[in-house]
Amino acid sequence: MKIAICQINTITGNISHNSKVIRQFAAQAKEKGADIAVFPELAVPGGFAKDLYLRKDFLSACDGELEVIAKECPVPVVLGTVYEGENAVVYIKAGKITRFASKNNSFEGLRYFKNNDSHAFADGISACVYSGFEDLMKAAQKASNENVKYLIVTANDVFYMGRLEEIHNELKECASKQNINIVFVNMCGAQDGLVSYGRSIAVTEDGIIIAAAESFEESMTIADFSNHTPVDCEEVPYELQAYDALVSGLKDYALKNGFSRFVIGISGGVDSALVAVIAKDALGSENVTGIFMPSEYTSNQSKEDAELLCKMNGIRLLTVPINDLFDSFKGALSHIFVGKENDLTEENMQSRIRAVLLMAYSNKFNALLVNTGNKSESAAGYSTLYGDSAGGYAAISDLSKTFLYKICEYRNSLIDSIPKSVLEKEPTAELRPNQKDTDSLPPYEVLDGMIVKYFATFNPNAKSGMDISGDEKKIFRMIDRTEYKRQQAPMGTKISKKSFIRDLRIPVTNGYRG
Amino acid sequence: MKIAICQINTITGNISHNSKVIRQFAAQAKEKGADIAVFPELAVPGGFAKDLYLRKDFLSACDGELEVIAKECPVPVVLGTVYEGENAVVYIKAGKITRFASKNNSFEGLRYFKNNDSHAFADGISACVYSGFEDLMKAAQKASNENVKYLIVTANDVFYMGRLEEIHNELKECASKQNINIVFVNMCGAQDGLVSYGRSIAVTEDGIIIAAAESFEESMTIADFSNHTPVDCEEVPYELQAYDALVSGLKDYALKNGFSRFVIGISGGVDSALVAVIAKDALGSENVTGIFMPSEYTSNQSKEDAELLCKMNGIRLLTVPINDLFDSFKGALSHIFVGKENDLTEENMQSRIRAVLLMAYSNKFNALLVNTGNKSESAAGYSTLYGDSAGGYAAISDLSKTFLYKICEYRNSLIDSIPKSVLEKEPTAELRPNQKDTDSLPPYEVLDGMIVKYFATFNPNAKSGMDISGDEKKIFRMIDRTEYKRQQAPMGTKISKKSFIRDLRIPVTNGYRG
Repeated sequence: MKIAICQINTITGNISHNSKVIRQFAAQAKEKGADIAVFPELAVPGGFAKDLYLRKDFLSACDGELEVIAKECPVPVVLGTVYEGENAVVYIKAGKITRFASKNNSFEGLRYFKNNDSHAFADGISACVYSGFEDLMKAAQKASNENVKYLIVTANDVFYMGRLEEIHNELKECASKQNINIVFVNMCGAQDGLVSYGRSIAVTEDGIIIAAAESFEESMTIADFSNHTPVDCEEVPYELQAYDALVSGLKDYALKNGFSRFVIGISGGVDSALVAVIAKDALGSENVTGIFMPSEYTSNQSKEDAELLCKMNGIRLLTVPINDLFDSFKGALSHIFVGKENDLTEENMQSRIRAVLLMAYSNKFNALLVNTGNKSESAAGYSTLYGDSAGGYAAISDLSKTFLYKICEYRNSLIDSIPKSVLEKEPTAELRPNQKDTDSLPPYEVLDGMIVKYFATFNPNAKSGMDISGDEKKIFRMIDRTEYKRQQAPMGTKISKKSFIRDLRIPVTNGYRG
Repeated sequence: MKIAICQINTITGNISHNSKVIRQFAAQAKEKGADIAVFPELAVPGGFAKDLYLRKDFLSACDGELEVIAKECPVPVVLGTVYEGENAVVYIKAGKITRFASKNNSFEGLRYFKNNDSHAFADGISACVYSGFEDLMKAAQKASNENVKYLIVTANDVFYMGRLEEIHNELKECASKQNINIVFVNMCGAQDGLVSYGRSIAVTEDGIIIAAAESFEESMTIADFSNHTPVDCEEVPYELQAYDALVSGLKDYALKNGFSRFVIGISGGVDSALVAVIAKDALGSENVTGIFMPSEYTSNQSKEDAELLCKMNGIRLLTVPINDLFDSFKGALSHIFVGKENDLTEENMQSRIRAVLLMAYSNKFNALLVNTGNKSESAAGYSTLYGDSAGGYAAISDLSKTFLYKICEYRNSLIDSIPKSVLEKEPTAELRPNQKDTDSLPPYEVLDGMIVKYFATFNPNAKSGMDISGDEKKIFRMIDRTEYKRQQAPMGTKISKKSFIRDLRIPVTNGYRG
């Protein structure tokens, strides 16, 4: 049995495009001598289409394309799609479509899809749509009981650090416990910040991996169950996985939304440096423009670092000083601010002036403004709304500051891309004389630990309440108080198991003082 | 039987505050000779607390306060709270807490609460947490079967135009069909843009309303089932209902988040005029500051209208011309924009300069910037991101432009507040010479109709597909394409059954061309 694992990158909502990709892959599978071609969950409509799944015209269009696929595919196909109101996996052979199974929905899935426990199989093949280990085991057991030899597990499974290891362990355990060959076919590519990691695998009933696709890349991988050798499927370190996910998230957001260029505010600091390199890896250095916008508080070091960074990466750097603009605003408001001391207002103003400049560039040249805020700042609200929080897409908003340095080191170990001085100097927003991040925040190692603990408090199954120190309470309150900024922030790439907004939903109006 | 209907306005998350309010109302109920005091759904934690319901410490704190309430309340009490993992209604008598029933969760509720069909009753009283007509009928039938005389329906039901009429019809129908006295006790006040409308009522088993609380206001209403007369409970027109909801939404957002002042960009147009009046009604004219920011494209008429509006409403008006700032930005970017024509970039720039000024005022004086965008603009993306789309709260973002005029007329019929010329002139953004909204958009009557149709397409239960004209497709695509702006917009008050963001979830990356 030769199974072509078609790890495709769909465009959500673009049904005709997805159908074309499916038919091309199926034709290729035939050429390669595959007996069957298998595709991910929701391959026809694309994943995470949200309320599009509620549109009758959209569902009809999916049905129509499924018919086209059924007519044209030269090999039997297993694929995920919306089918009779279910998030289903169907089997197509000689023009005939058979429903095999559907996903066991929880929470959001219930808004769109029916739950339906029934399943079918044919030609020694069964299938399911991945929805957790428990359901996987059940599907495998059913298939095994019916002497089915192959279980195709279709998925649109999202990356977070640790996920690849988890899923592969689940699949190996399931295959060997239920004595069934499993092919896991996952989507790849990103949709609105959720990165499907690909990394499809085939596992024998002995729990041995005999084929594995790359992470994050569209590919076809042949799993030959009649003639196989184990493949090495050890995962690379989290730094590398996360970095690739960050590139994938940004790249797909840009391309699928019609952007071919990026603009980034380059401060000379580490956040914008990493984002510039990610942007370069996503679309090429020729499509990245950096804008350096110094004020009177900007150090010479920042200027040198910004220039060196862009030189090292072949990125064009433009410079627009903001001092005169800053003075103009202060002048325009002086009759209203008379007698008032300088405060956060003036710091925010500088940040917002920069956003106006960046957005002007973005509008004029149709370049996507990439936001450079990280998760630690996002948690603490250490950003200016409509200032440095602006952007069409946030490249690293789920990346904590401490882990960010590790990723920079990793990236530098491939090719030196981020200047050493950027990594060594102390973080500063440079919005007032001699400002340091630690003036307002605990050291990032401490802050990042508290953020992890903050997320952990949202667990009703915890055995007991947590001990929360006074310092932690202060930071937790800071996180709560700045939720209004996160709710207006651009979307970004999820790389951690618990990200803000996507995995945590806290109210803005929040009287809890825990 | 005298039942005190305690229609309270909780602060979400502020358990000790809510507990105090409950105890004060219960004491008052005792004074008024009530046999029992009844409170809304989730009265202890507050409604729409989202993931706070997942925090063990939060749940424990709710339990603790429930004990305090049980100890101190001088009359029997029925109230909604989180109880043993359920969104439950409990009965408290002589210090003893008895669980009566819990809410039948769908979708979001499942993230937080257990479903549990069991119910109890005591002293001739039963209760439920409102979760739709079907469940209400079931609860009433069960109670009726057990010869219970009174069903207390606790709720945290959210306003939209038409909702008051719906719920009262449901309650009357249920009471008379199941032959049971019903007391509906609803929350009032707003939480993050969701306005609980209050308007609690008592209905006899004949379907006659014998007590009705005001809409949108905290109150205690005594329903005396042994000595009653029918009360008139006809609803006021939608214009009035919606206006009151808009005031409630803005006022509670401000007060519950610690703001006692508003700042609003006043353009001389109808949107900012209405928002100024809403803001005045929320916190008083002395707490509203308008800022008029003319450019070279601003007409004299706009200036006169802005001034007249503020004079009529006793609102302070500051003026900050933006011409020089605009010139400074154009100068700063001229070396980058060399050879480029003026386009949308320059229009957006003016709007963003205004946002920088407004946010500076907001920061300096701790005044909440109230956004003035309406639903029609929001749908069409007819706004500048980080420009006129900025704000801490969007007062009218769920109000269509055509209905907005009706609300203005209604408000003027009470006291003349919005200048006639503002209502009569043609809408314009004044970002280029002689600009009119209709240059970019269909007439608002047409656009608003298309928006309603757009929402209607998201209905998988529709009997057949809709006929969608070419013009409609163009507008639908415009709505889809501008989702990225709505996702970064400030939250606002829901007043329609189908609002963006809350009731519709569309992807930003969206290849569907329907």
